[in-house]
Formats: sequence, structure tokens, C-alpha cells
Amino acid sequence: MALKDSGTDTVFGRNDVFDLDSYLKEKQNLVNIELGRFLDEVTCSPPTLIQAMRYCIEAGGKRLRPVLCMAACELVGGRQTDALYAACALELIHTYSLVHDDLPAMDNDDLRRGKPTCHKAFGEANAILAGDALLTAAFEVLGSRPSERVPPSVAVRIISVIAKAAGASGMVQGQQRDLFFEGKTVTWEELAALHRLKTGALMEASVSVGAMLGGGTDEQVAAVNTYGSYIGLAFQIADDLLDADGDPELLGKPVGSDQALAKATALSTLGVEGARRQAADLLDKALSVLTVFGKRGEPLAALARFVVERTH
Amino acid sequence: MALKDSGTDTVFGRNDVFDLDSYLKEKQNLVNIELGRFLDEVTCSPPTLIQAMRYCIEAGGKRLRPVLCMAACELVGGRQTDALYAACALELIHTYSLVHDDLPAMDNDDLRRGKPTCHKAFGEANAILAGDALLTAAFEVLGSRPSERVPPSVAVRIISVIAKAAGASGMVQGQQRDLFFEGKTVTWEELAALHRLKTGALMEASVSVGAMLGGGTDEQVAAVNTYGSYIGLAFQIADDLLDADGDPELLGKPVGSDQALAKATALSTLGVEGARRQAADLLDKALSVLTVFGKRGEPLAALARFVVERTH
Repeated sequence: MALKDSGTDTVFGRNDVFDLDSYLKEKQNLVNIELGRFLDEVTCSPPTLIQAMRYCIEAGGKRLRPVLCMAACELVGGRQTDALYAACALELIHTYSLVHDDLPAMDNDDLRRGKPTCHKAFGEANAILAGDALLTAAFEVLGSRPSERVPPSVAVRIISVIAKAAGASGMVQGQQRDLFFEGKTVTWEELAALHRLKTGALMEASVSVGAMLGGGTDEQVAAVNTYGSYIGLAFQIADDLLDADGDPELLGKPVGSDQALAKATALSTLGVEGARRQAADLLDKALSVLTVFGKRGEPLAALARFVVERTH
Repeated sequence: MALKDSGTDTVFGRNDVFDLDSYLKEKQNLVNIELGRFLDEVTCSPPTLIQAMRYCIEAGGKRLRPVLCMAACELVGGRQTDALYAACALELIHTYSLVHDDLPAMDNDDLRRGKPTCHKAFGEANAILAGDALLTAAFEVLGSRPSERVPPSVAVRIISVIAKAAGASGMVQGQQRDLFFEGKTVTWEELAALHRLKTGALMEASVSVGAMLGGGTDEQVAAVNTYGSYIGLAFQIADDLLDADGDPELLGKPVGSDQALAKATALSTLGVEGARRQAADLLDKALSVLTVFGKRGEPLAALARFVVERTH
């Protein structure tokens, strides 16, 4: 049921040769190496804590937020290595949020990316602590690893942007609202507002911060932020479509978990066709924001399509 | 059993008139106002998340880390208002750590400061999220509220210092080790190493960061860091003495909880007299570090005494 064709796509035509696979692999590789380097420096006795952190980071994942961050940096003429440290911090935050969301008191999920969730593998206390440590590690990275080319004033500013997006005004509030909505009847508008917090805020921060680190103007930062808000919501709709009938093998988790938790989804509020239309519309909007960047917008356009059309 | 007299105390004589009560009240007041200002800006719908955060912050507490931070700033000639934002961040981190430590999967405590713990008042999921949000809020404050007199390079540096102290290399590792040690036979040396992580690291960061924000030299920062390491451990010994036979009314929680959890304490490893001697020794060492600061060291000396001799 995931979108196979996102509809009108005139600006960044499919005939353009853009090799997203190689693009993703290169950036994912950079991020994985840098995350590994950071984790290698942490010694814990007993080693359980760092093992749990490593387990969650190494479980894989698309590294979507880091790639978006580095892509936005390059979009405005920056070097991806200047955004790499922030990209890693965003992945650390995203990973912590998954660990805590999976906890028995929250979504109570047993599987994540085909493997036992952190609390299943390491116990609940260690999973809470691993999440705490991953979140804190993000800010350690942000405080200690800016590239020399990043002005300290920008390094401070992006910390504020990321923390605001991740905390009570953003992602954490989204998760709280998600739990609150369980079993309740909600409209699509309410659900969209929830996803803007839970998923959108950190995606917006990813591209905004990337553009800031690349030396983008305020207008450029605002433009990518808008792009981020569209793809953040589109991402969640795609997720809902996948949860409804994606391939559990590809997803690495059982499908239908939203239904089991009596969670409202894009499907339950909009219907399948409505959800597909909504995603296609958001994709169009995201692409049209990028037109001002011309050819340079291609990677972010391809990423937007990937977000909506992915199968896992 | 808490120490009533800390023994040799020649440098900062008790005859000096230093009104610690007023000193504490003034600084606690500044911190409470600033924390309130920050929390007032956060709007959550439903309001549960911000209510839970506020509940934990407003539960009181000595604001010891913030006071230490501002005191260290003034010690090296800085203005306390330059350290106020970092002081608030430290309290946010300390508060989050209490919320998560109290969780059923961790220490499973029902009372904190005479009131139901966060998960007892708001449920487990909301307590996990409130802790996450408080931790994230600390970095939002650090990223968005430095005084204009703080150079951005220093603002970035203190974020790295605080995050390192709070995370897998510091406090979180200490908590993990604490859980790991439950029911095990440990030596005083092992226990002291644990407390250096769990309590000491953030205390050290509090004074170090205060001195950095006050424009202290590397030697001054190193000196207060050493002071912080002594009082961090002394604080924990005093805590153990209080847990063994403090006044539950004053403590706001039942005594004897360490024994119930089969946790090793300063008492169980050193005996009462040994623990008292150890605390007195650490106090002496902390005071002697301050001698190079002359009269200016008085507030931190009084705070060191307070840490060891407090009754709650």
C-alpha cells in the first residue's frame, strides 16, 4: 500500500540521473564511521551501558536525519564534513527516542529492525539508561566536535535548535500526545499536529541545522525548514501505510502494531486513498520549495521521494 | 549520625561571620525564578508533560549544583548572573536523573522530598518522558540562554563538559553501576569510584563550569574541579549516614531504603566511625584546595561544610 508513484513531479524529473543509492551509502558510511569513533571513546565498567548504546546504534536504520542534515549543508554550498558532527548528534537523538518509545510503559514493542528491542535484549533499567546516555551523548558531540570552520556562535545556536526540536516543545511532546491519543477518536488534523511534533520537529531541525552549518542565509534556512515540515509529515503517512500492509521481513517488525495499540493513523482518519493523496501532495509541496535552489536541490528532492516511496 | 563537627577547620574558621542561610536563599531564589521563567515558555497540549516537569522542579531541593556553579563563578571574579543559565541547566539535569532513578525499573521509589515520585503522580510513561524533556531542556537552556558576556566558544565548551559529566562517561554510568552492584559485596574503593561517577561528576562539572563562565584560569578551573570531586564524595557519605538514621520528616522519604535494596553504602563498607572520618577527611581536603583563593573561598568553604553536615 506504500506509494509507488508520487504523482506530479515536474521540477525534478525522473529522467535526471541521480543515483540516490550511492548518495545514501556514501553519507551513511561517513555517519557510521563517525558514530563508531565516538562510541569507541566511551569506556564503561561494567560494559553493559556502552554495549546497549552500541547495540541500538548498530541496529542499522536509514540514517535519514543525518543524510538530510548533510544534504542541506551541501545545498547551500557548505561541505558535508562541517555538518557531520551534528548529523551524528541527530542520529543519537533519534535512536534514544526509539529506545524509550519501545519501553513497556510506552509502546511496549519487542522487535525493532528485526532484532529484539533494547529492553528485551538488556532489560528495562539498562534500556532507560542507554536512552538517557544516547540523548546526552548527542549534546556531548554537539559541544565537543564542531568542525573548526563552524563559528562558535553557530555551534551554540544549532544546539538550541536541536534541543528545542527534541524536547517538550517538539518530539517528546509528540510522544506524550501519541500516548494520550491511544484509544481516542482523533481527526486527521489532530493527528497531523501530533506528527509535526513527534517526527516533523526533528526532521525540520535536521535540515535547518545543516543549512546553518553550511553558511546558509536566513531565507535558505527557512526554505529547508519548510521542506522538512512537509517530508516529516509525509514520512509518517508512509510509515502508517507500511504498518498497515508492509512486508514484515523488510520492515523488521510485525505489521499492524498501530491497530493493536488502538492508535489513530493516516489510514484510519483519511482512508488508504486519502492517505496516499495526502502524501503525494506533501511531496509535491516539498519539491516545489526546492525549486529556488535549482539543480542543487536534486539530492533533497530524491530524498523526499525516497521518504514517501520507501518500502521499509 | 550525620556529622555534627567536621574536625580540623583552621583555614576558614567558624568564627568568621558567613551567613550561609542568606547566601543560599539569595541564589536559590535566582535559580527558581529563572527556572520558572523557562518553564513558563513551554506549552504542552495536553498539559501533562509540562505539569510533570514543573512538579519535579518545584518539588524543591537544595539547588546545590546551581549554587555551587554560581559560587565558583564569583570565586574567580565573575558575576553570578553569567553562570545563572548554566546553573539552571545543571538543576534540570539533576532533576531528570532523580525522576529516572525513582522509576519502578530502577530504584522503585514512591516518595521524593515528601511527595509522591513523578511516576507515582503522573504514571510511568509520563515520568520517563518528563525526565527526557528535563534533560533535553537543560541543553536548550545551554544553547539559547548564555549571557551576552559569555564568549560563544566558552558557551560551547561548557556544553561539552556538562554533557560528558552527565552521560555514559559520568552520571549515567554511575547509575548503571549502582544497579549492577545491588546485592553484591563491594569494597569502599569500588563504592567510591561509583559515587565519583554518579554524584561526583556533575558536582565537579558544576564548579568547573561556574569557574569557566567567570573567566577563571585553567589552574583555577582545575582547583575547583578538585574541590568538587571531594565534596561530591563527601555528599554521598553524608547521604548514606542520613539514609541510615536521618529524620524521615526532614528527609521527606523513608530511611533505610539502601538496606532494603541491598545496596552497599559508606556505612556498610566503612562502618559508622569510618564513614564519619572519611567525610571529615574529604571536607578537610576540599577546604585546603580553597586556601589559594583566600577570603574569596569562604562561600565554597561554607558550602562544603553544609554538604557534609546537613541534616536533610
